[in-house]
Amino acid sequence: MKKNERVDHLIKEGLSIIQNDEVFSFSTDALLLAHFVRPIKKGRIMDLCSGNGIIPLLLSDKMEVPIEGIEIQPQLVDMARRSVTLNQLAAQIQIHEGDLRTVNQSMLPSQYDVVTCNPPYFRENQSFQHLKEPHRIARHEILCTLDDCIRASRHLLKQGGRLYMVHRADRLVDCLVSMRQGGLEPKAIWQIYSRPDKPTAVTVVIEAVRGGKPDCKVMPPFYIYQNDGHYSEEMKGVYYG
Amino acid sequence: MKKNERVDHLIKEGLSIIQNDEVFSFSTDALLLAHFVRPIKKGRIMDLCSGNGIIPLLLSDKMEVPIEGIEIQPQLVDMARRSVTLNQLAAQIQIHEGDLRTVNQSMLPSQYDVVTCNPPYFRENQSFQHLKEPHRIARHEILCTLDDCIRASRHLLKQGGRLYMVHRADRLVDCLVSMRQGGLEPKAIWQIYSRPDKPTAVTVVIEAVRGGKPDCKVMPPFYIYQNDGHYSEEMKGVYYG
Repeated sequence: MKKNERVDHLIKEGLSIIQNDEVFSFSTDALLLAHFVRPIKKGRIMDLCSGNGIIPLLLSDKMEVPIEGIEIQPQLVDMARRSVTLNQLAAQIQIHEGDLRTVNQSMLPSQYDVVTCNPPYFRENQSFQHLKEPHRIARHEILCTLDDCIRASRHLLKQGGRLYMVHRADRLVDCLVSMRQGGLEPKAIWQIYSRPDKPTAVTVVIEAVRGGKPDCKVMPPFYIYQNDGHYSEEMKGVYYG
Repeated sequence: MKKNERVDHLIKEGLSIIQNDEVFSFSTDALLLAHFVRPIKKGRIMDLCSGNGIIPLLLSDKMEVPIEGIEIQPQLVDMARRSVTLNQLAAQIQIHEGDLRTVNQSMLPSQYDVVTCNPPYFRENQSFQHLKEPHRIARHEILCTLDDCIRASRHLLKQGGRLYMVHRADRLVDCLVSMRQGGLEPKAIWQIYSRPDKPTAVTVVIEAVRGGKPDCKVMPPFYIYQNDGHYSEEMKGVYYG
């Protein structure tokens, strides 16, 4: 363990993950993204903007297929790789240090059945620029934009392969427009609300299919909390199974 | 009254409307569209694809501003105009017979504060072509497409003016992409579900602003029925106030 690091436990999965609030800790959104990914029995999965490897770890509990992740920040790649080792998952999970903007040069096209992505949420010039460098890179579109993520996903996915992306609800239109223009047709949208009594959704998860036909399902609302502030039954399911 | 016509009552509004199942009768979606329109105190409203004038009638109860409608089918224009007279609303509501694809020639630009539209839902070649001509025109993109509606709305709306559109949920992405490409930025999305226990939304209502900045609110879900098959409290509010 390095300075400021701690080990958190993923209860449902029975896994451990190295976190460091000075650098990166995963959010509820990562759990939700992994929750909505439909398991596959064969094929390969790539996680973009992989951070400390939370998505590959969570998915490894749902599926037995090989899972890879790409992360641009060396510190996070190091944390992710040590978490993989800690959980004895090196045979299933591989973390690449790299820039997703150049996967069209560094990786063969159309090799993946599923791509997942929890991208930086904020436009480059949007507030919070006072954050420390690692957080800024993880949260702001400094080293990759939404369009960059879509382009990389399109390159990596097979025809008919599926992208799962989580994003802020206020960028839903940006996501859907970028996906369609990028050849990844949105097929399902889940809206995540904090509580039933809150007026707007906070987060969306979108499933898009490379080369899919236009026909999008708007899924049932998902609530993280009940109105009394306790976790909802569905969120308890995400955390505890 | 003409052959096959009947008069239905809009309970909450205390209004009457001439209907004819052989030609056109309004759907629940029209009620929902009118429900989500935010009232204005001054300015002008235009309703596209106005049918038998249901939207102008409903809106006249919410607002005192002048309301116009455009409808391409002469039979429906005639029904709508007679409903306006029946309700003594000729001073507030005016129904134009016309083709919204040519409003850029027939009407001045940027004259309206609000545009409403309940467009044909189905692509031209999608099933149900066995329907009678008036229903086919009302339901299929034969005489106007989604993009035609967006272009007309953009022409008619002032900068900052608002479009309200209702559409099938499976065309949400089509709507959002067409709006953004047409310069009408989606700002709020309401998802309408038949019942809480149904897996996907059936209908969406979208508010878009001409020249608006990207930032979209995903609003709370709206349920038409309770799981026991009775109308929900919110739907009773739409019907009965």
